[in-house]
Amino acid sequence: MSEEMEWTEEVITQDVFLQEYYVGVDLGGTKMLAALISSDGRIIAKEEIPTLAQQGEGAVLDRLGSLIEGLLATAPGGRGVLRGIGVATAGTLDTANGVVTFATNLGWRDVAVAAVLTDRFACAVRLENDATAAAVGEWLAGAGEGAPDCVFVTISTGIGGGIISGGRLIAGTNHNAGELGHISIDGNGPLCPCGNVGCLELYASGTAIGRSGADHVRRAGEGAAGALVRLAGGDPNRVDARLVAAAAAEGDAAASGILREAGRALGIGLVSILHLLNPQVVILGGGASHIGEPLLGPMREMIEERCLPSIRGPVRFAASALGSSAGAVGAALLMSQSR
Amino acid sequence: MSEEMEWTEEVITQDVFLQEYYVGVDLGGTKMLAALISSDGRIIAKEEIPTLAQQGEGAVLDRLGSLIEGLLATAPGGRGVLRGIGVATAGTLDTANGVVTFATNLGWRDVAVAAVLTDRFACAVRLENDATAAAVGEWLAGAGEGAPDCVFVTISTGIGGGIISGGRLIAGTNHNAGELGHISIDGNGPLCPCGNVGCLELYASGTAIGRSGADHVRRAGEGAAGALVRLAGGDPNRVDARLVAAAAAEGDAAASGILREAGRALGIGLVSILHLLNPQVVILGGGASHIGEPLLGPMREMIEERCLPSIRGPVRFAASALGSSAGAVGAALLMSQSR
Repeated sequence: MSEEMEWTEEVITQDVFLQEYYVGVDLGGTKMLAALISSDGRIIAKEEIPTLAQQGEGAVLDRLGSLIEGLLATAPGGRGVLRGIGVATAGTLDTANGVVTFATNLGWRDVAVAAVLTDRFACAVRLENDATAAAVGEWLAGAGEGAPDCVFVTISTGIGGGIISGGRLIAGTNHNAGELGHISIDGNGPLCPCGNVGCLELYASGTAIGRSGADHVRRAGEGAAGALVRLAGGDPNRVDARLVAAAAAEGDAAASGILREAGRALGIGLVSILHLLNPQVVILGGGASHIGEPLLGPMREMIEERCLPSIRGPVRFAASALGSSAGAVGAALLMSQSR
Repeated sequence: MSEEMEWTEEVITQDVFLQEYYVGVDLGGTKMLAALISSDGRIIAKEEIPTLAQQGEGAVLDRLGSLIEGLLATAPGGRGVLRGIGVATAGTLDTANGVVTFATNLGWRDVAVAAVLTDRFACAVRLENDATAAAVGEWLAGAGEGAPDCVFVTISTGIGGGIISGGRLIAGTNHNAGELGHISIDGNGPLCPCGNVGCLELYASGTAIGRSGADHVRRAGEGAAGALVRLAGGDPNRVDARLVAAAAAEGDAAASGILREAGRALGIGLVSILHLLNPQVVILGGGASHIGEPLLGPMREMIEERCLPSIRGPVRFAASALGSSAGAVGAALLMSQSR
């Protein structure tokens, strides 16, 4: 009896003094961000460096390893234990074997990321889709505040996201659930590169907003009035979502109209998502979400107008709290939960 | 040690001889079906009687009570124990208090169904949305074969359904998830009575198929050629989904076209649902699903054409195995699991 108590006490002592850490990485086509995370999801340190994908997979993974080593060196007390590394990335993943099977943004095919990192750091490594990881990060350590029913939408180059329902990530039968950008909001609409028709991201992504802005500049011609044409210097190729937002902020009616239409499209898609899933929180992240009211106001109006009141009632809308760290934090938390 | 073993033996003896039962009820506007279910979901006995809603809630609940008593009398051995009653019904429910707050098909407002049945049968009673209950019935005891990721779609007067993901029913934050018929497949489409625009059920429900058939007969005029006009005797008011299906079976091109368009609409909606949820099984039930290939062929073609291959790959399509008993079976199983 007394032996057992002593043993218990020792375990408690270890818990207090020997902190457990996880590393989360968001491995993107242009930059990689790594974060050192405590087991309760707090960010202790983070750092971002360019990916330099053109140097090839070996060089990228070497530099990722050095990035992680640098973070570990900053761990307070230096007595911490690295329990695992979670890697969030785009592309097709073989999560069971920790392999990036195909990633356009990195130019990778069949890269055994988990094996390389396990060799170097002697810990478990888990890969995850980047939007899914960001959803989990926001849910558990960001704007979701742990609400059991939570939808995360990222509005960026494309539209992606993740679904949490009943306190669990909706993964799907082969880990491909949560393609929020590829629901159809018009079954007779334009063809999406994904093969579907009328996909939400064709109307409401940052790319779509930039494309509409460029179309406007092209149609208006170089000398036309308005902030959008002026800011673009009359050149359609210089228009992106940021420029459309800047023009709208200066009162350009065409730019405001473009954001309004994109926002309404977001609303149409979200009404379908809400009707299927009845969440409590909708978190909006990604670069284009920072456009704010000119985009999100029309989105909310559309939802007010069309959503079933019993489903609309409980929904809270929130901006991403973790920003570009969400994927890394979520990857680390998923790693910590899978142990 | 010997005392403990004797006690265990007694418990096993009870399990074998004293069977536990659940009753599931599907309480509809025109008929009510009750089923006596073993704890593993087998139907031991079932019976259906007309609801006669016009007699008022007291009379309906009295007759429901007698229906349940009749079933219990058939329980083999007569030594069974009724562990609970699950009631599946349409309308707005206060599941926590067991109250049907509003049901158009029954003409009910604030009817305390659970309290009435608990008083009479001295057991727990649980209310559930009828489409959700049918989804659970098919999932656990029907065509779903317990697959962890399963979508049930019922194509009937309207379109409803239920979602199972990761082995759990997706309920949503206030129990309203699974409104599969009210996802928008055309954001600029017609207004749905629900308040949304372009809802799937406006294009693909039994009602929608009948409406398109009636429109055809109206336009064609009484003496026009074709099986649909002939079967309707030239009267648009006599056209329903069944008549359209019968005309299509006789080779009527207009009727086949109507079913094809409805099937394609189903496919458009299902692609969005598959992209969000990545299920393993899609179960199709409800009266109009019996139309079969003329409706479901075009649906599957649309899915082949537009669904992401990684998500389309693992999906199996299945017809409802329990038919009109699915709601009652599911209500009983949900009752059994909530104990």
